[in-house]
Amino acid sequence: MDTLSRLAQTIAQRRAADPSHSYVASLHAKGLPQIARKLGEEGVEAAIATLSGDDGELVGEAADILFHLLVALDARDIDFAEVLAELDRREGVSGIDEKANRSA
Amino acid sequence: MDTLSRLAQTIAQRRAADPSHSYVASLHAKGLPQIARKLGEEGVEAAIATLSGDDGELVGEAADILFHLLVALDARDIDFAEVLAELDRREGVSGIDEKANRSA
Amino acid sequence: MDTLSRLAQTIAQRRAADPSHSYVASLHAKGLPQIARKLGEEGVEAAIATLSGDDGELVGEAADILFHLLVALDARDIDFAEVLAELDRREGVSGIDEKANRSA
Amino acid sequence: MDTLSRLAQTIAQRRAADPSHSYVASLHAKGLPQIARKLGEEGVEAAIATLSGDDGELVGEAADILFHLLVALDARDIDFAEVLAELDRREGVSGIDEKANRSA
Repeated sequence: MDTLSRLAQTIAQRRAADPSHSYVASLHAKGLPQIARKLGEEGVEAAIATLSGDDGELVGEAADILFHLLVALDARDIDFAEVLAELDRREGVSGIDEKANRSA
Repeated sequence: MDTLSRLAQTIAQRRAADPSHSYVASLHAKGLPQIARKLGEEGVEAAIATLSGDDGELVGEAADILFHLLVALDARDIDFAEVLAELDRREGVSGIDEKANRSA
Repeated sequence: MDTLSRLAQTIAQRRAADPSHSYVASLHAKGLPQIARKLGEEGVEAAIATLSGDDGELVGEAADILFHLLVALDARDIDFAEVLAELDRREGVSGIDEKANRSA
Repeated sequence: MDTLSRLAQTIAQRRAADPSHSYVASLHAKGLPQIARKLGEEGVEAAIATLSGDDGELVGEAADILFHLLVALDARDIDFAEVLAELDRREGVSGIDEKANRSA
């Protein structure tokens, strides 16, 4: 089983854990706005690391953003596989041009 | 080959394409600050969608953040596999507690 | 009357305007999530401009963030004077040390 | 003297202070990327508070974003008055329509 699918499964299991022992459970205890806030902040940190961090910092921030994205999807009961399917769909639609992946 | 690895490969190939035909090449033509900016903005959009978007919007924003994260990593010549290895490492270190995945 | 107070007043007046003629009204027509999203995105853009923009770009992004902050406050019916009072209060509390202005 | 001009002056004075006693000096000690990062993160927090915070939280986040915007401008040696002049200029240009304040 690949890394992200396994991590998504771990995150789903931790939701109901004791917030004092699980970071995922502690985010859930604080509510969806805190989960959203962390995701947004990790986006900022990854952006800053892209511009001025060393390789290790960017790898760390990229891992953080993936982790918090999986937490947000799980909190909304959305399967990560749906996101992968959307990326596949875009690539199929765009064919030789990836512009369909462009966000507004 | 899985979706994200294949997408990372596509992105790497498009870097040298004509910016008028490739979104990836157009980001590169604008420079690293624009790539970082897009990644940060997608983080904000995913955060807002987590709080107030419908499922389809959140799936779309999650796909956008993954796409732009892969563009940023490629722009810095960092292999996505390194980020997956970092996530594996954290899970190994943390064992039964995922707290090592916590960002500061 | 100073610039920000006057701008806040203008923004409050435009809320009820025709969305096809007023940017403020068009944001309101799209709803509070769009207003929040713009504020967050301007934060990202100002951060990137702080790191890699020229002076004119940073001035422009700083103006954008102030503008969208005033739109968000107005959308929530919060007077900008309350924010200034909070800054005054923090400075009074902190005295010779501005640490009270620190965010978590 | 108004709140923001006085705060900008305080921030400029604290730049050279002991980082262990001054939050502004501690940000400078960490470098411009940390100052940019804080500004971006405050943008995210203000956006989340716009959507789901109570009035007191939004006032606090708005104060945080103003504080860190002034720190960023000072770090780049840009006078806050230039930002106010830009807002005045936009309003003058746009006349009865505030669309010139629109960001891309």
